Amino acid sequence: MEIPRQEFQQMLPTIKKAIDECDFIAIDTELSGLHRPGNSKRMDTLENRYAEFREATQRFIIIQFGMCTFTWDEKAGRYIARAFNFYVFPTAMTGKIQPNRVFMTQAQAFDFLSKQAFDFNKWVYQGIPYLTKEEEEAYISQATQRMTDDLPDIPVDDKEKAFMEKAKQKIDIWVKDPKKTEDPEGVNINTRNAYQRRLIYQEVRKSYSELTAEGRSGFIRVMRLTQKQLDKRAKEKLARIKKDCEEAVGFRTVIDWISASRKYIVGHNMLLDVCHMIGQFVQPLPEKLSDFKKLAHDLFPYMADTKYICSTAAILQSEIGSATSLENLRFETNCDKFKNPRIDMHMEFPRYINEKAHEAGYDAYITGSVFLKLHSYLEFQLHPEKVPQEKEEEPEAESEKEEEEEEEEEKEERHRGTEGGWDVSDQEEEEDRAWLDSDEEKQEQVDEEEKEEEVYNYGSVRFPLINDDGKVPEALSEYVNKVTIVRTGFAYFDFVNPEAIQETAGTFYISSGTELPRALVYDAFGAFGKHIVDMTDANSGFVVYEYLKQDPDHVKAAVAQQLHDAGVEGLTIMTVSEYYAEQKERGE
Amino acid sequence: MEIPRQEFQQMLPTIKKAIDECDFIAIDTELSGLHRPGNSKRMDTLENRYAEFREATQRFIIIQFGMCTFTWDEKAGRYIARAFNFYVFPTAMTGKIQPNRVFMTQAQAFDFLSKQAFDFNKWVYQGIPYLTKEEEEAYISQATQRMTDDLPDIPVDDKEKAFMEKAKQKIDIWVKDPKKTEDPEGVNINTRNAYQRRLIYQEVRKSYSELTAEGRSGFIRVMRLTQKQLDKRAKEKLARIKKDCEEAVGFRTVIDWISASRKYIVGHNMLLDVCHMIGQFVQPLPEKLSDFKKLAHDLFPYMADTKYICSTAAILQSEIGSATSLENLRFETNCDKFKNPRIDMHMEFPRYINEKAHEAGYDAYITGSVFLKLHSYLEFQLHPEKVPQEKEEEPEAESEKEEEEEEEEEKEERHRGTEGGWDVSDQEEEEDRAWLDSDEEKQEQVDEEEKEEEVYNYGSVRFPLINDDGKVPEALSEYVNKVTIVRTGFAYFDFVNPEAIQETAGTFYISSGTELPRALVYDAFGAFGKHIVDMTDANSGFVVYEYLKQDPDHVKAAVAQQLHDAGVEGLTIMTVSEYYAEQKERGE
Repeated sequence: MEIPRQEFQQMLPTIKKAIDECDFIAIDTELSGLHRPGNSKRMDTLENRYAEFREATQRFIIIQFGMCTFTWDEKAGRYIARAFNFYVFPTAMTGKIQPNRVFMTQAQAFDFLSKQAFDFNKWVYQGIPYLTKEEEEAYISQATQRMTDDLPDIPVDDKEKAFMEKAKQKIDIWVKDPKKTEDPEGVNINTRNAYQRRLIYQEVRKSYSELTAEGRSGFIRVMRLTQKQLDKRAKEKLARIKKDCEEAVGFRTVIDWISASRKYIVGHNMLLDVCHMIGQFVQPLPEKLSDFKKLAHDLFPYMADTKYICSTAAILQSEIGSATSLENLRFETNCDKFKNPRIDMHMEFPRYINEKAHEAGYDAYITGSVFLKLHSYLEFQLHPEKVPQEKEEEPEAESEKEEEEEEEEEKEERHRGTEGGWDVSDQEEEEDRAWLDSDEEKQEQVDEEEKEEEVYNYGSVRFPLINDDGKVPEALSEYVNKVTIVRTGFAYFDFVNPEAIQETAGTFYISSGTELPRALVYDAFGAFGKHIVDMTDANSGFVVYEYLKQDPDHVKAAVAQQLHDAGVEGLTIMTVSEYYAEQKERGE
Repeated sequence: MEIPRQEFQQMLPTIKKAIDECDFIAIDTELSGLHRPGNSKRMDTLENRYAEFREATQRFIIIQFGMCTFTWDEKAGRYIARAFNFYVFPTAMTGKIQPNRVFMTQAQAFDFLSKQAFDFNKWVYQGIPYLTKEEEEAYISQATQRMTDDLPDIPVDDKEKAFMEKAKQKIDIWVKDPKKTEDPEGVNINTRNAYQRRLIYQEVRKSYSELTAEGRSGFIRVMRLTQKQLDKRAKEKLARIKKDCEEAVGFRTVIDWISASRKYIVGHNMLLDVCHMIGQFVQPLPEKLSDFKKLAHDLFPYMADTKYICSTAAILQSEIGSATSLENLRFETNCDKFKNPRIDMHMEFPRYINEKAHEAGYDAYITGSVFLKLHSYLEFQLHPEKVPQEKEEEPEAESEKEEEEEEEEEKEERHRGTEGGWDVSDQEEEEDRAWLDSDEEKQEQVDEEEKEEEVYNYGSVRFPLINDDGKVPEALSEYVNKVTIVRTGFAYFDFVNPEAIQETAGTFYISSGTELPRALVYDAFGAFGKHIVDMTDANSGFVVYEYLKQDPDHVKAAVAQQLHDAGVEGLTIMTVSEYYAEQKERGE
């Protein structure tokens, strides 16, 4: 479902309901750019990579946000998906004030999107604006200040002195005896520009505090209001500010709701998505990596990354292989082994009947579907007894071979009137409605609704995402809140715990009894090739080579000698494999 | 005429011809943004304003460029306009290499454009890319380096060692006895990625210098070429580089041609346009204002700004008033006083039959038309004898009242086959062509062409833009190479000479025998309100107040006292009026 700016406010209840009722939320973003050119090292430390992502959130923006909710449908034994596609554009054309936003575009990012037929007109003309919390507060305080006329005084320009004299005279005459004037209810001061209007407001506030000035088109009306009128006016003004503000907060509402739901959010290679979601809509990202982790985890307590799950679970790798692009996961999970659970798009969300790869809403839908299938697969490995017995009459999953589709149609037909499969096109849906419009058929529908027990059940197995004891289920415990991060020495990015380093021949652990001089460490290892130093704390860290050609023992000895000569004491250098073996031993 | 990326190369001859044959070129741009938010002072020095514009050229880009050429049509006694509208987008999708460009967008600028129905899809999908001269040189040197395989060596990854061994073995077997292999002409090495390909090129270059490696789809072919084949190959490669480069240089070609033509370029409030034209397509703007002036003047020796002309020529102000927006100038010059000259759009350029305000091509057309009318008006003031006598049968100018249009149609009809009026729509034109396709009518057309003397002459007067002696004509001499600049103490921005300060009560001239300490001067004047200090050289400058309330004589005395106390010697302070009076006296 595409949500244009013009319909956003009225669609909010539908969005809220989808978030409130779902089991989890899949997300995806399209960005105006990724990195600054020439800024991508082959290998980098976590800190540097985060700094790069943080910088990206300050430069580039999400221009399309995809959200797909997945809701268990108990009666039909399947999941119902609701995919939303939002264009996001920081327009200043809604609300009364908007920050004047400047953002960066990477031409190559637009090139990429144009290959996917991205609609840049929809983006600018229909994109939904947003305010962060801080911007919202500034907005309210500014609007309230304008309301209470609490503005700093401005000087009266020489050119406007005559205008002001005339205006004051006119007001004075009216004040003296309103009934003697043409318009006993008030006096109108014609103004030519914003400066004159501001001068009049200022004058009335200062010299006629018992009167009220109200802007009209081309003039300002000065009146004497009763207390009741004044109260009503204040109330109306506040209501207007609130409404303007809601419109200006715009898309952040959706992010706030996602966060408030405390539900799983699922992405594919999602670290950059999460950075942008927070940086653009919630608050600027903190400078320190540890602060970011805490903030993100507070906002989104359960994150799951389909790319990370696939590239880490050994059992999945043997099924799927090492190609973990979303497109490939979609392809690989489109077979019998990943049949459970059945997933249908809600019939009011027919946008993705045909593939729309790289539209954020579609990618979110695919990501969530893949997640359900991977999770189910992992659960079946732990609990083979839960694998459902093949039911003879079960319709094929939507993704089955085309030859079987015709057979299916008949079966599908029986289930109309319940939440339909997503293979109901707009047109078919309309035809259905027309069909239902005849009285006879209406009765038939009612009959169907009453015979609830006749809803077809696909018999899918649902696995909880959070156990009754509040814990993440065993099948997911190794994956939740860990996401893919490439080109670092680490196997993943962890929102909660420290990351584990990748065990390759070119990775070392180093520690000393006192603070390790980082530059010295960097130089000592430098003799053997390009490498990074990722400190875990002041006294210890990891060293990772891009390619190490020398014998690791030789490297250890040479570096130890050099650091010893430089005065570093209590030094330990070992390969990461040795380090983890030692850690394990200590643990046991 | 809209020129999309896909047709740019084939339209270049048409563009070149229009530039070569015209009298002058009007330009306009649409930008991705104007300024950083909150960066616009009420008053600023010229240096600061230039710095702001220069910064803008580093951030924002021209996304649409309008060019309209105007060519005198001697036979018909009128000007023929050719309006081109180019979308400009730094895509990396044409040519083989493109710099990865990142640019800024100001959301409000896109909001503004969306109010004018700007087509952002055309911009991204059809926008023409560009390289500056420096980028072009880098492009060629990179491409040549790739051609000669002159690349730095890269190490062979452990994982690829087996691949390389196998490849070398295969090549060795072939080298030993090509005829014994399946493919005596060469040997194919299958590759899986760019890294493997680069390794193979490297290996062949290093270990098999007598062989040639050529990339194919999915493999690299290693062959032994004759010298003749090698020469041919090198020639082909060079030709490809040249072609790629021409495509990559893209829109800069048009700017280069405009500059090379040495013709007038005419804009409306054009300083920012000129900054962007140079900064985006020619070279980054120099840091120093004086260097910029020289560079711009070298590139475009004659610039004329319709806004500046209107707001400066007293005689025009009395006709047109003080509203100098392009829209207003178009309206005001649409009357009998500005009837000369007749201007028609060339019949192959029918895009602007209906108004398309704020499309760059249309705005360029209006700007050029206004310029012709203003220039003509100014010439008539100097040379009343040149005012043409009303001819009874003269058709009304295109902009005349609608009631008269029907009458006109008949007259227009007679002139088809010559360069038509711009009120010929696409469709009509096609009908014309169909009509001309019948043999009989073709003959008629030939007859018309032969009867050259029958071309209707509108009797417009043409005034030269450069006199026979190479000088700018008197009517324009005060305006050429001066452009509008607001919110400074200066009346205009001058590409050739120092600017004159605006004479208001709040403007002073200050000089001393030695270097003036600028901060001290700034502070001394600070007691009397907000102001700027614009130094003309180290010893002198102007001080301009936003609003000065005090008596100028009092300011002079107080500041002189303060600077004297601070040790400044040989001080002169006078109002700008006094300063110019003195200058004049000295001159006489």
